[in-house]
Amino acid sequence: MEQRDEHDIEIEGMLLGRKEMEKKGSEMSEKEFTAMMMREPLLRNRINNTSQIAIVGTKVCPIESLDYEIVENDLFKQDWRSRTKVEIFQYVVLKWTLALLIGLGTGFVGFFNNLAVENIAGFKLLLSNNLMLEDKYYQAFAVYAGCNLVLAIAAAALCAYIAPAAAGSGIPEVKAYLNGVDAHAILAPSTLFVKIFGSIFGVSAGFVVGKEGPMVHTGACIASLLGQGGSHKYHLTWRWLRYFKNDRDRRDLITCGAAAGVAAAFRAPVGGVLFALEEAASWWRSALLWRTFFTTAVVAVVLRAFIEFCRGGNCGLFGKGGLIMFDVNSAMAVYSTPDLLAVIFLGIIGGIFGSLYNYFVDKVLRTYSIVNEKGPSIKILLVITISLLTSCCFYGLPWLSSCTHCPDYLKDQCPTIGRSGNYKNFQCQPRHYNDLASLFLNTNDDAIRYLFSSGTEKEFHLSTLLIFFVTMYCLGIITYGIAIPSGLFIPVILAGASYGRLVGTLLGSLSNLDVGLFALLGAASFLGGTMRMTVSLCVILLELTNDLLMLPLVMLVLLVSKSVADCFNKGVYDQIVTLKGLPYLETHAEPYMRHLVASDVVSGPLISFSGVEKVGNILHTLKMTKHNGFPVIDEPPFSAAPELYGLVLRSHLLVLLKGKKFTKQRVMTGSDILRTFNAFDFAKAGSGKGVKLEDLDIKEEEMEMYVDLHPITNTSPYTVVETMSLAKAAVLFRELGLRHLLVVPKTPGRPPIVGILTRHDFMPEHILGIHPHFGHHK
Amino acid sequence: MEQRDEHDIEIEGMLLGRKEMEKKGSEMSEKEFTAMMMREPLLRNRINNTSQIAIVGTKVCPIESLDYEIVENDLFKQDWRSRTKVEIFQYVVLKWTLALLIGLGTGFVGFFNNLAVENIAGFKLLLSNNLMLEDKYYQAFAVYAGCNLVLAIAAAALCAYIAPAAAGSGIPEVKAYLNGVDAHAILAPSTLFVKIFGSIFGVSAGFVVGKEGPMVHTGACIASLLGQGGSHKYHLTWRWLRYFKNDRDRRDLITCGAAAGVAAAFRAPVGGVLFALEEAASWWRSALLWRTFFTTAVVAVVLRAFIEFCRGGNCGLFGKGGLIMFDVNSAMAVYSTPDLLAVIFLGIIGGIFGSLYNYFVDKVLRTYSIVNEKGPSIKILLVITISLLTSCCFYGLPWLSSCTHCPDYLKDQCPTIGRSGNYKNFQCQPRHYNDLASLFLNTNDDAIRYLFSSGTEKEFHLSTLLIFFVTMYCLGIITYGIAIPSGLFIPVILAGASYGRLVGTLLGSLSNLDVGLFALLGAASFLGGTMRMTVSLCVILLELTNDLLMLPLVMLVLLVSKSVADCFNKGVYDQIVTLKGLPYLETHAEPYMRHLVASDVVSGPLISFSGVEKVGNILHTLKMTKHNGFPVIDEPPFSAAPELYGLVLRSHLLVLLKGKKFTKQRVMTGSDILRTFNAFDFAKAGSGKGVKLEDLDIKEEEMEMYVDLHPITNTSPYTVVETMSLAKAAVLFRELGLRHLLVVPKTPGRPPIVGILTRHDFMPEHILGIHPHFGHHK
Repeated sequence: MEQRDEHDIEIEGMLLGRKEMEKKGSEMSEKEFTAMMMREPLLRNRINNTSQIAIVGTKVCPIESLDYEIVENDLFKQDWRSRTKVEIFQYVVLKWTLALLIGLGTGFVGFFNNLAVENIAGFKLLLSNNLMLEDKYYQAFAVYAGCNLVLAIAAAALCAYIAPAAAGSGIPEVKAYLNGVDAHAILAPSTLFVKIFGSIFGVSAGFVVGKEGPMVHTGACIASLLGQGGSHKYHLTWRWLRYFKNDRDRRDLITCGAAAGVAAAFRAPVGGVLFALEEAASWWRSALLWRTFFTTAVVAVVLRAFIEFCRGGNCGLFGKGGLIMFDVNSAMAVYSTPDLLAVIFLGIIGGIFGSLYNYFVDKVLRTYSIVNEKGPSIKILLVITISLLTSCCFYGLPWLSSCTHCPDYLKDQCPTIGRSGNYKNFQCQPRHYNDLASLFLNTNDDAIRYLFSSGTEKEFHLSTLLIFFVTMYCLGIITYGIAIPSGLFIPVILAGASYGRLVGTLLGSLSNLDVGLFALLGAASFLGGTMRMTVSLCVILLELTNDLLMLPLVMLVLLVSKSVADCFNKGVYDQIVTLKGLPYLETHAEPYMRHLVASDVVSGPLISFSGVEKVGNILHTLKMTKHNGFPVIDEPPFSAAPELYGLVLRSHLLVLLKGKKFTKQRVMTGSDILRTFNAFDFAKAGSGKGVKLEDLDIKEEEMEMYVDLHPITNTSPYTVVETMSLAKAAVLFRELGLRHLLVVPKTPGRPPIVGILTRHDFMPEHILGIHPHFGHHK
Repeated sequence: MEQRDEHDIEIEGMLLGRKEMEKKGSEMSEKEFTAMMMREPLLRNRINNTSQIAIVGTKVCPIESLDYEIVENDLFKQDWRSRTKVEIFQYVVLKWTLALLIGLGTGFVGFFNNLAVENIAGFKLLLSNNLMLEDKYYQAFAVYAGCNLVLAIAAAALCAYIAPAAAGSGIPEVKAYLNGVDAHAILAPSTLFVKIFGSIFGVSAGFVVGKEGPMVHTGACIASLLGQGGSHKYHLTWRWLRYFKNDRDRRDLITCGAAAGVAAAFRAPVGGVLFALEEAASWWRSALLWRTFFTTAVVAVVLRAFIEFCRGGNCGLFGKGGLIMFDVNSAMAVYSTPDLLAVIFLGIIGGIFGSLYNYFVDKVLRTYSIVNEKGPSIKILLVITISLLTSCCFYGLPWLSSCTHCPDYLKDQCPTIGRSGNYKNFQCQPRHYNDLASLFLNTNDDAIRYLFSSGTEKEFHLSTLLIFFVTMYCLGIITYGIAIPSGLFIPVILAGASYGRLVGTLLGSLSNLDVGLFALLGAASFLGGTMRMTVSLCVILLELTNDLLMLPLVMLVLLVSKSVADCFNKGVYDQIVTLKGLPYLETHAEPYMRHLVASDVVSGPLISFSGVEKVGNILHTLKMTKHNGFPVIDEPPFSAAPELYGLVLRSHLLVLLKGKKFTKQRVMTGSDILRTFNAFDFAKAGSGKGVKLEDLDIKEEEMEMYVDLHPITNTSPYTVVETMSLAKAAVLFRELGLRHLLVVPKTPGRPPIVGILTRHDFMPEHILGIHPHFGHHK
């Protein structure tokens, strides 16, 4: 029982009548309580494996719902009344300051990440390249694979031991957070630390992973950290930040952070805003658009300043690379019908490959999650395996490719001696280069830039492109899911670009378009096929390549590939959200919900408190259950008949009990409590903080005293009648971002509340568990 | 009384108990009914002038709320159950077909508009220019002013006599529609017709008006027309379109249409999507983003195809102009701190001027609305006055400017003989040009292009820019509000660009930035100051000028000017919405609403029906009141105690009565009705269509018969308890896009419903009318 409850944060329906509770009071032992609950098994017990826990990173974690409802209790009302104009001004100033700080922080981290990757990976490649030039092939491989392995182990160790939540892309978790699901430690400082350094090591280690997803997660972490205002432990909390200690304002900050992350990863400020809007956020309003835009603008300015600084050669191996900005010179503003047909074809095949990619990623993730559960050392072993495999592929496959004579117009630049440049000598004679090695033994960013380059039709063999495409496609699939921070954008772009270039080369003279442009369109088709974003991808690609004229082509290919892929499965992020067991609320209610009513899924009567309740009862209930909200029922003498006064939150009860404003008599002491407490005492603390049950020290004599719950009870909880269509209740729940939705009886003469609906109750797994006959309707 | 009701579409609260109604039944005469209602005056009667009517265009019109709630009655449930996979597929295909058609239609109209304007205005300018060259100055003025006058009268006559709703920008009305307010005839075919031709004539007449706002309105009209599926009268209705006969799907279509309008006006597909998102739409979801994007992409492709076609010289005077695409060649990617300071300064002053613009526009609109109420002929007189004033300014002011010698590098292009080109000879000697005439005697698009041009620092006198700025600023203000379709973008861009260029010229060598870039930034600052959009403006300007490198500067100036202007007043569109009396629901509840509860604004018990109701009663009630929703109360013998069964809509009642499924006895005949009717019989008809009260032909003996309301009653209306905080009820109402929100009693033993809240009840004017003491809180 205890085991179940531990992760069962959001269960609200329990078979314990108010009367029964009252009678037994605090003298009921834990055993009796448990036994009593076991007599009438919970409806929910039967379908236990729905959504109380989630796999976050590579670890199973309890999850918590967020609450975007405005609490309307006496205490908060008093606070609003007393809030001065100065305080409102403070709030506005602080809001914008935080947006500025998020922008600065994310911009800095984004630049630092790039700088570190370019230098580490650059040094590694330089080292092995130099050995190659001396024909020391085995040593070169040893150095290359060794460096990769060390970096991979560093990244994996950070992830496995310090913050398992930092593994993976992070975008699904951020998306779930913005939908109202807080998985433990997903935005913690340790996660931020591991995400930054793990991503640097992981990308430098030559894995087929990107830094874009991790950057989004990093941005969200920075925003969360700034909103929480440093650490209580080190007295770094800023008093003003109390305004932001609620889920609503925190959500806004994290939306800004996610947008800033994209802006930093792609140097795409508008794209960042659109990404946050299209993919990340579940709730949106105009005012937020404006603030998010400000944040991403700051990121753009910060990056610009740093790049200006580096232009002077102050940044080691950080050259043109790093912050990807692909100058695709399409020059071709005109295109004909065959070109359009080619683009549509590209889109269709891209959509199919994209959805297949999602399918395989899902399968691989399921396999890995079993492997990863076996402990940190197994996790690291898996990373080592993949790292060695990657090194072998990258170093071994180029031997299959024949050497090409350097183009004449490139005098000293081919073959490339040193790091930057696209013509790797590898095993070839002087004045020749190996085109496959030029793709494999390069940073991912440089490989993409090379594939996108125009006027280079003749520089790749068909076989090279095919080998590179297949390798990247497969490695991308098996790499995602190992215990390192790993973005999905870059693998998909790499596979897509080589596929596009392959198609472009095959079509040859049938199309007027440049093969570089084909590579870009191929990348777009793959991105559309896996991620299913449209406007934001379009704008990101636009900002990456700085060429407005090919916007219609990119649009077309995205539309086609997304439409095709949507026929097969969901977007990759949605798939991962589902896989991880995060209870994501969809915008639309499922069709079968229309045939159910609210009372069909609500589970029996539940624990409620009286307006003035015995301390012992409260404490006992809090100990016995993990519910987060309890209805408060006014009874005679406080009202003529039992009536619903409102809803009280667990966190607020804990603060109230800690304050110890108890009375011997059962009387209302509201005004006294209003004097003692401040609304900010009840503000939501950061995850893992706040008053806990163990912190309370209630004496035996206090257990028999009473406490007035009226001042802290939310008097305006949203309610639905029990006969309300479940679909409409779900819309209400989702649109308003609720945590608790009270179900009230339709007919008079019954207890004033039937039950509480929570996020859990709207999950298809839960509903179809209770009503399996709807399963085939779906 | 009757007068009040006529416009009082959304009033729901009337003092007529169910019992009283029952007793008196149909034998109660109209007089008695009215007298009874007069005995207890409606709370609302006291504050009559809130929001039942609106000024749409230049005419006072009744308005209607839209209903985005999903009706969950037995009939619709039966329909969902029977809906096949084929039908769902049909719906999806049709959805995309409609998006395609909207894109094609709007693209075509956008091109046609430009083509017509360029040719008409070009011909006019050519004519007067040729006379000028022969030194026939008076004749030239007569021709110029005469052409303007004729075109102006044509536009005004169309507006005044055919579709008054087509006057003005149209964006506020579209914005209000997407917020749930349907003003009469705002999307009618006649409005579309007048909007297209009125805009062409108005812009050609040389008014300081744009075609961008009208294009948005045109796009929305096209979408609405396509969604309604042609005319019933001419049997053009397409059967499949029945799926779209509801406010929800219509809203989506019109959002697409509005986006398509912006895309067509600016050739900015991404900007169009963002405009719809940031400014137009009140509700948004990811799926819509995707569909809107598709529509704007189609518009972009259509425009591209037409322009390709015109490049061959097939389009008369349609040259480079028309679809504005300003090639600002900034070339300057680098800027220093003084430049940034200059930009911030530009933004601050732009913000102040922008908010002043809004202030004056508001004042002028209020004055004009009094003038315009006096009848169509007065409206036309006003248009004539403004037209003559504009002609005088445009032709007279250039005489103040001295002549400039043509730059040497322009050989044959200066002075311009013929239409296109920026160097007007006007009164000057050969090889000289008049810079002020070059701005005034040109199309607005060409003037903007000239102001934005780079490398032309020396071509304008300071006095020229000052005169042009002041003229455009003032004319822009007094022109908006006359009875022609008039966009606000172009006047604001014209004033802003000349202001920016003026500042740039004044700063001279203090800043490295080009004056053309300054003109662009000035335009941005004015746009930010008046319209208060950020991301969408930024992207539109980006797409207009095709230069990503100045994105940070545009962002900065927009941020500054919007922030400054927000200190003074609301955005111009919001201001117009308020002025027109359109009951726009804000996203956020006003602070004072937190101190009120739902029952504080609800007005008394109301008319309700029994589950099986007497036909006479229904007919009488429908005749007597203009309510759109009635609660249905089940009473014994159909239930143990009176209980709320649901809400029935006026439009559904009318359809039911028309079907005449009456019974002599008071029995439930639900299944019979379910067999007779189809869910689509109850689909919402286009505005002005659908069954009307006058269409019913109920015989005397049928009046005493009964009809079962259960099958058509929405069994899941959203409800709030009477003690619910008004702020939270407002959030519920706004977020879910409701039309009726039922207020239920808290304590048992009372009638099962307290009242109904409608859009009207959440308007600040209404609430502050009942509770004036909150006025100063605001």
